[in-house]
Amino acid sequence: MTSPDPRTRPVAAVLYRGGEVSARRDLLAVEDPLEIRVATADDPEPRRLSMTMRTPGDDADLAAGFLYTEGIVRNREQIAGITCSEDHVRVDLAAGVRLPEAVPKRSFVMTSACGVCGRASLDNLRAQPPGPLTPGLPQLAATVVPGLPGALLRAQATFAATGGIHAAGLFDLRGELRLLREDVGRHNAVDKLVGALLLAGQLPASDAVLMVSARASFELVQKALMAQIPIFAAVGAPSSLAVELAVEADMTLLGFVREGRFTVYSGGIRITR
Amino acid sequence: MTSPDPRTRPVAAVLYRGGEVSARRDLLAVEDPLEIRVATADDPEPRRLSMTMRTPGDDADLAAGFLYTEGIVRNREQIAGITCSEDHVRVDLAAGVRLPEAVPKRSFVMTSACGVCGRASLDNLRAQPPGPLTPGLPQLAATVVPGLPGALLRAQATFAATGGIHAAGLFDLRGELRLLREDVGRHNAVDKLVGALLLAGQLPASDAVLMVSARASFELVQKALMAQIPIFAAVGAPSSLAVELAVEADMTLLGFVREGRFTVYSGGIRITR
Repeated sequence: MTSPDPRTRPVAAVLYRGGEVSARRDLLAVEDPLEIRVATADDPEPRRLSMTMRTPGDDADLAAGFLYTEGIVRNREQIAGITCSEDHVRVDLAAGVRLPEAVPKRSFVMTSACGVCGRASLDNLRAQPPGPLTPGLPQLAATVVPGLPGALLRAQATFAATGGIHAAGLFDLRGELRLLREDVGRHNAVDKLVGALLLAGQLPASDAVLMVSARASFELVQKALMAQIPIFAAVGAPSSLAVELAVEADMTLLGFVREGRFTVYSGGIRITR
Repeated sequence: MTSPDPRTRPVAAVLYRGGEVSARRDLLAVEDPLEIRVATADDPEPRRLSMTMRTPGDDADLAAGFLYTEGIVRNREQIAGITCSEDHVRVDLAAGVRLPEAVPKRSFVMTSACGVCGRASLDNLRAQPPGPLTPGLPQLAATVVPGLPGALLRAQATFAATGGIHAAGLFDLRGELRLLREDVGRHNAVDKLVGALLLAGQLPASDAVLMVSARASFELVQKALMAQIPIFAAVGAPSSLAVELAVEADMTLLGFVREGRFTVYSGGIRITR
């Protein structure tokens, strides 16, 4: 069974519905492991920095975004090159860019799924954003917000096919979708989006809204903060730590964004009625 | 702001709904970091095995379940003791039980969020289950399945309060909920459930159905397999790798389990019409 789209895979399934049973073909969202390997100019033997379960596609964006949101690279000039294979991505850092001390010389696999990868202790769970958000800016009209999840969903080709994949979308202040990335892991979807912005020289994204198809967790808010995105909108609920981080950083955090409604948990000053 | 329930935290929020704006108090699901530290009988200085973002509560279950689903302990006798603090759990292994070689002597934080923590390479992503599932058994009536998500939701106290937390429920073959665990991380909810079963001496859970409020990812199916749970049901879609693993292990995998319908992706022989 092969599919022309590496992000989906067909499978035989049986649907039970109201007493009826029928055979069908479903499309599944592909989940496959990817290692992110990093080499420095001083030591070209790459180290395994992370292993993540991701949906194939945009792997260079994913690796770049992961390195950026983890604070390992600060700009695209610090990346000399990215080489993608089926199951790994190799990132070559520019001369003078070092890996954090916590990354051991000997190969060791970590996972990236919770966004705290490589942190040496609970005390430095929080990555250092490149700079503060602009107080009170930009302004986003309240009438724009409830339209965002529908716009995100309409653009999600893989979700439409599989019903099983997360999205991260970057919107402008008029509610127009500017960039979309999809992945079975919501953290990967955001890393892909931030990585695409980094590689295109479009960071910081300080006049944009990030909308995710998931709940707002600490890790996702932190990734948005690293990209200096001032407004974070989630279809689902925020966690306590997500709200704490947003309040501290003066980020606007919107939860339960649905047709006709949304809730503001932080930074309401950016929302105009 | 304090709450008597450590799993929820109140927060001031502003609701925008159909042009109306109103201040309100919301309850958030708590997300806080937890380190899992493990000491052996030979070396009582604990090593940091994992850091996860979890909802407080059932931390001993979480640690036990994590060690079990990662294949580090094989039965409850291998755990000599568990000590919980606010931000870490210490597990003392019984005499003769060793940590995998991949766990470095020097403290190093990994994350547990994707269920592949500590695996040395892509080749051994898969943990070794304690034994095979029984072919074709148990049998589950198709009429029982669509009632599971409603039963799970009705039992979810923290979800009812916050709208933002995952659940893992263990059901018997009549569709009665036997055990429920909740967490902001779906993998943690399953680890808590498996850990509770381990500590109660109730593994393998070979006559049970595991229902999760999430999509079916590789990691969740693998955790169920380690507990030898033969039937896995998810509210959402399965990923490609989740289906591959279920097919290989002859596990029954049900997706899109909703009121009045569900889809069988693997092991349909256990479902009776």
